[in-house]
Amino acid sequence: MAKLVGRLNPSQRILMGPGPSNCHPRVLRAMSTPLIGHLDPDFLQIMDETRSMLRGLFRTKNEFTIAVSGTGSAGMETCFVNLIEPGDRVVIGINGVFGERMTDVAARCGAKVVRVESEWGKIIEPDQIKKALARGKTKVVALVHAETSTGAATPIEEISKIAHSKGALLLVDTVTSLGGMPVDIDKWKVDACYSGTQKCLSCPPGLAPVTFSEKAMKLVRKRKRKVQSWYLDMSMVERYWGQERFYHHTAPISMIYALREALCVIHEEGLKARFARHMRNHRALVAGLEAMGLKLFAQEGHRLPMLNTVEIPEGVEDVPVRKALLKDHNIEIGGGLGKFKGKLWRIGLMGHSSTLNNVVLCLGALEKQLKAQKCRVASGAGVAAALATG
Amino acid sequence: MAKLVGRLNPSQRILMGPGPSNCHPRVLRAMSTPLIGHLDPDFLQIMDETRSMLRGLFRTKNEFTIAVSGTGSAGMETCFVNLIEPGDRVVIGINGVFGERMTDVAARCGAKVVRVESEWGKIIEPDQIKKALARGKTKVVALVHAETSTGAATPIEEISKIAHSKGALLLVDTVTSLGGMPVDIDKWKVDACYSGTQKCLSCPPGLAPVTFSEKAMKLVRKRKRKVQSWYLDMSMVERYWGQERFYHHTAPISMIYALREALCVIHEEGLKARFARHMRNHRALVAGLEAMGLKLFAQEGHRLPMLNTVEIPEGVEDVPVRKALLKDHNIEIGGGLGKFKGKLWRIGLMGHSSTLNNVVLCLGALEKQLKAQKCRVASGAGVAAALATG
Repeated sequence: MAKLVGRLNPSQRILMGPGPSNCHPRVLRAMSTPLIGHLDPDFLQIMDETRSMLRGLFRTKNEFTIAVSGTGSAGMETCFVNLIEPGDRVVIGINGVFGERMTDVAARCGAKVVRVESEWGKIIEPDQIKKALARGKTKVVALVHAETSTGAATPIEEISKIAHSKGALLLVDTVTSLGGMPVDIDKWKVDACYSGTQKCLSCPPGLAPVTFSEKAMKLVRKRKRKVQSWYLDMSMVERYWGQERFYHHTAPISMIYALREALCVIHEEGLKARFARHMRNHRALVAGLEAMGLKLFAQEGHRLPMLNTVEIPEGVEDVPVRKALLKDHNIEIGGGLGKFKGKLWRIGLMGHSSTLNNVVLCLGALEKQLKAQKCRVASGAGVAAALATG
Repeated sequence: MAKLVGRLNPSQRILMGPGPSNCHPRVLRAMSTPLIGHLDPDFLQIMDETRSMLRGLFRTKNEFTIAVSGTGSAGMETCFVNLIEPGDRVVIGINGVFGERMTDVAARCGAKVVRVESEWGKIIEPDQIKKALARGKTKVVALVHAETSTGAATPIEEISKIAHSKGALLLVDTVTSLGGMPVDIDKWKVDACYSGTQKCLSCPPGLAPVTFSEKAMKLVRKRKRKVQSWYLDMSMVERYWGQERFYHHTAPISMIYALREALCVIHEEGLKARFARHMRNHRALVAGLEAMGLKLFAQEGHRLPMLNTVEIPEGVEDVPVRKALLKDHNIEIGGGLGKFKGKLWRIGLMGHSSTLNNVVLCLGALEKQLKAQKCRVASGAGVAAALATG
């Protein structure tokens, strides 16, 4: 028998990295609600309420709007394995880690992947997609709305028009954007979209909200070969979430409780107010960082409100700063990924973590750590600028 | 915006179906622990403690012992997608729904599936596997230890010897058995095993404990083609759970909290005491059911202690009984699956739900409902027999 371990008592963190964000206390409380069965009439009602609120959040009437039983990456895989059959041409916009991940997932489905690349930190331009579509009959155009690795937001609507004019479906990653900035599935005519719960929804990680247009679902239902993943086969999952209530796999009950509560919190705040709050705190953080002489990384005019990428100043070491923030202040921020490891910090202001207090705390703590590394920063300038803006 | 929904307030159920079972209150409390990051040093320690206790539960020294970020069915898919490459011959024992599901999952990986079938309720006999192995070079033999659809437990050890003597790997489903009856990965020489958290672990559904032998992991690492699922690619997931701590996907933090606590509860009780408790309550239930004139369905000598299948008496309607149990007594029991729909009840005594009190309550309530359907049952006979046995 394994030796017994101590009491569960993790440090109390202020989560300002690329996710997870801090949960609203109501969401944490919902997690400890006693279980009921996955076919219990009470649970079926909870599923229906969750779907209905998810539709409101995605701004869609799509009947097929559910939470996949896995994290955001399972949501990505869900979209690709259901829509793609071997040999299908897929045009993928790549301007960071998650676009790159899409190419890996799509290739594992047997897709012919066409890479459309932008420099990290920049957006994917409509013209780039147009050119790629001109070179061959394409089934799916896939884009990351909010690139968590770089902090850039690619506008979706124009690319959507281009994709549809060529008969392609549009697949969009909104893992980081959903709940923190406008995501408008029906207006943008997105055919398949996935997200995650642990970013701007401020719910624990473990579910992937997914929505498919009727056009996408028709395609799934009339596939030539079975979806390569049994677990993520939406033609089967649809029978459980839909009226039939046919058992597929045991739903993650507690996570659905949490998502339902997180969606209540979101709709009570209101999407407009929530997006404005994210934007206000983003502006305060940026004002503070710039007053401290720091440079934002992502393309101006396309910066994410919930994920701020900051260039690490010359001569400052990444890891000691992040370690000290965690150890001395219980603040978690993220480091750069891939080639930007050691070159960028990623400061999240997501969902319940997006508060002016967190902005102020983070700027103050960062100032202290930069000074500890002999970086010249005007005392209190960051905090003052943030408070004046926020 | 979706219309707001009411407060989360599901009925308080006594969960005696095929899973989920009721959680220990400590596990529910663990779920509401505030989040930390998936790369936080505190979380890495929690992962290590969880792995260590999982090894104790599986009775294995396998380094690769983790919790997959999905439910038990994701665990099944994990084992097949990692071990199978297109064209591989896989011998699958089928004596219920979950063996059947294995054939679907394996076929989606491109396996040549060899079906070895037993009547539902019966076990898979070693000789059946032996014959199937004699007919061709086989990569994997796959078995369901505890068939949740029928209540039968197939002994693993002899089949394991046969499989290994023919150079095949052994893959075993312990979704329902783990934590409620002996599962002995190293002694039985199981190469890949998956389970679920919502049965005898009495943790919410959402994770799949998985363990791979070093032989299985070597095979995964030297595959010719990539695992078809990015999300369930264990060669990548290994780099996150192992020393490297390389980011793959965001771990379901709260579910890991819960699993860790559930494992603490299990190890504090002790495996031997826990298995004895499951057996004792099973015997009490069986004594009660038989005293009421009901017949057990699964093969005698191979009945699961945690999942009891009962034949519905002639003239008794299934659905009204289960509905009344749920509505009048808050007791959930399961119905039959597939061709046994309407013919069987499945009464679970799993983990925290396996108590003599639950046995007594269930028998009493069942007596009342049988009488309501004009079925002749001696008053109090079931409860008395259970109390005398338990």
